[in-house]
Amino acid sequence: MARTLIVLMAAATALAGCATQQRIDVPLPSMPPMIASAPPPGMAYLYGSAEADALSEQAYNGMLGYVRALLDRTRDARGRLPHQRAAGTLPRWPASASAVLASGSTAAVPQPTSCGALPPAVVLDMDETTVLNLGYEYNDAQTGQAYDAKRWDAWERGGADKVVAVPGAVAAFRQLRAAGVAVVINTNRNAANAADTARALAGAGLGTFEHGTTLWLRGDADGKSGKDGRRQAIAERYCVLAQMGDQLGDFADFFNPPGPAPASGRRLLPSTSRLVARWGAGWFVLPNPVYGTGLGSGWDDTFPADRRWSQTPEGVK
Amino acid sequence: MARTLIVLMAAATALAGCATQQRIDVPLPSMPPMIASAPPPGMAYLYGSAEADALSEQAYNGMLGYVRALLDRTRDARGRLPHQRAAGTLPRWPASASAVLASGSTAAVPQPTSCGALPPAVVLDMDETTVLNLGYEYNDAQTGQAYDAKRWDAWERGGADKVVAVPGAVAAFRQLRAAGVAVVINTNRNAANAADTARALAGAGLGTFEHGTTLWLRGDADGKSGKDGRRQAIAERYCVLAQMGDQLGDFADFFNPPGPAPASGRRLLPSTSRLVARWGAGWFVLPNPVYGTGLGSGWDDTFPADRRWSQTPEGVK
Repeated sequence: MARTLIVLMAAATALAGCATQQRIDVPLPSMPPMIASAPPPGMAYLYGSAEADALSEQAYNGMLGYVRALLDRTRDARGRLPHQRAAGTLPRWPASASAVLASGSTAAVPQPTSCGALPPAVVLDMDETTVLNLGYEYNDAQTGQAYDAKRWDAWERGGADKVVAVPGAVAAFRQLRAAGVAVVINTNRNAANAADTARALAGAGLGTFEHGTTLWLRGDADGKSGKDGRRQAIAERYCVLAQMGDQLGDFADFFNPPGPAPASGRRLLPSTSRLVARWGAGWFVLPNPVYGTGLGSGWDDTFPADRRWSQTPEGVK
Repeated sequence: MARTLIVLMAAATALAGCATQQRIDVPLPSMPPMIASAPPPGMAYLYGSAEADALSEQAYNGMLGYVRALLDRTRDARGRLPHQRAAGTLPRWPASASAVLASGSTAAVPQPTSCGALPPAVVLDMDETTVLNLGYEYNDAQTGQAYDAKRWDAWERGGADKVVAVPGAVAAFRQLRAAGVAVVINTNRNAANAADTARALAGAGLGTFEHGTTLWLRGDADGKSGKDGRRQAIAERYCVLAQMGDQLGDFADFFNPPGPAPASGRRLLPSTSRLVARWGAGWFVLPNPVYGTGLGSGWDDTFPADRRWSQTPEGVK
């Protein structure tokens, strides 16, 4: 099938002194589109590097160790957790067991929800947290297209067999479930594609998920794309021992204040004294230099004026 | 001062139909160089994002928690560690206390060194592990220059006041030293610049380092840039409870096999069954999508053939 390609020949011919732009119609089968010689660095890092593999295993190992220690601290002499106790008797969840912040929390005053005698769960974002969207990002990189909601929707519906599990996720989910801990996904994928999304998770070896109990999608609970409403709804059903995500909105909406992002001051918000101890202890971050709220900082947000350097011919200035 | 700029005007004028390349001499104060509108995505992520801030705090928190638990498991009833005991009496380091692999170890057979009654230490890489090289990378991004050893050397000598500590490092170093754990840097910075490098670390708030004891530089111990030789020399002086780095060569040289990198199969090497439990438990990785062995994978190493997807006008294929 023929389609229109815009072939920018500037890069190839600039060194010859003059570049021209041409719009030409070519039948795709007989002439492949011009592609970059290698994937963008962020994709090479996240999907192709041993370093990102190690970072992912580290996050999952850290989460499992934290959850196991919390369960061990909570079990009574007969090995029972709070939801398994006879009414009125011990054990109880520690006061800080919940990794979900109560409604009204801020970075300065982060108050965990109460766990009562709820059964334990771990709550995770999906994309680039439990699955790597290799198919979609390959298509992005090859075609150079910007993000497009319709194309992403087609991916949600048709890409189930083109994802892989994030390194560490399959083993971690198996061990959580064996310990009696529910695995709950809180994602902004479209609720209309719930069945396809569950199929993608199952196909990646991550097990069975059910919309409304272990799978929460965009708009569930409160109609919003911010995840706080869904987090509260999940925390009414489970004691959420840990959260995992690649975007800080996977932990609390206050990491994404209104206005232009990245807002000045967002960079060091996770280092706020009342939040800092949570990283690696209830909150577990996965790397994502490919898309999302981690990208887009400008020169001034990235390189403070007092940390700029340039080399002069004599050496440095 | 005037200097020669190569101004590539292709990008700005390509849309007008013709691009030209000109070499012009301009006095810098009156005409700034053409710069990109924003830093490269990898730099925006690592230096400007709250997500990378959280990842760094997570790695340092994880390391501290691991080291504290190991010290607590080892101390005798009087709080003494092995190097503080009277000869011949307990306590002893656990058999798996050392995070350094013995000479001859492989990914399939990773054997830790023996700790004897050595004093405890944590060993860290320097660049993008304990300090962020904001000044140098700003210069890279603004000038678009490729890596240049002479420019990097000028940076080592003159950039001490243009780095910042990696989030989490200052507090972690303080707590390690308070617990009697030495902080040791193993870096490939030039041994001739030892004093400047120590000054950069001190200026970032990371404390005092001394070449040959707590600061190991390229070529120390065995003349090589691989770090195994230095690791062995450090492990003869300390019980290394944890290692931290942004490149897998900061943990063991076998992560960088000879030949073209990334070698096929390197990606999932950290997930090897005998190594996987180390991530987050003795080995702690920091993110770096800006440079190093985590970059450079090609299409086939990044996107396996069976995980490629493209959207057709009808939907997906």
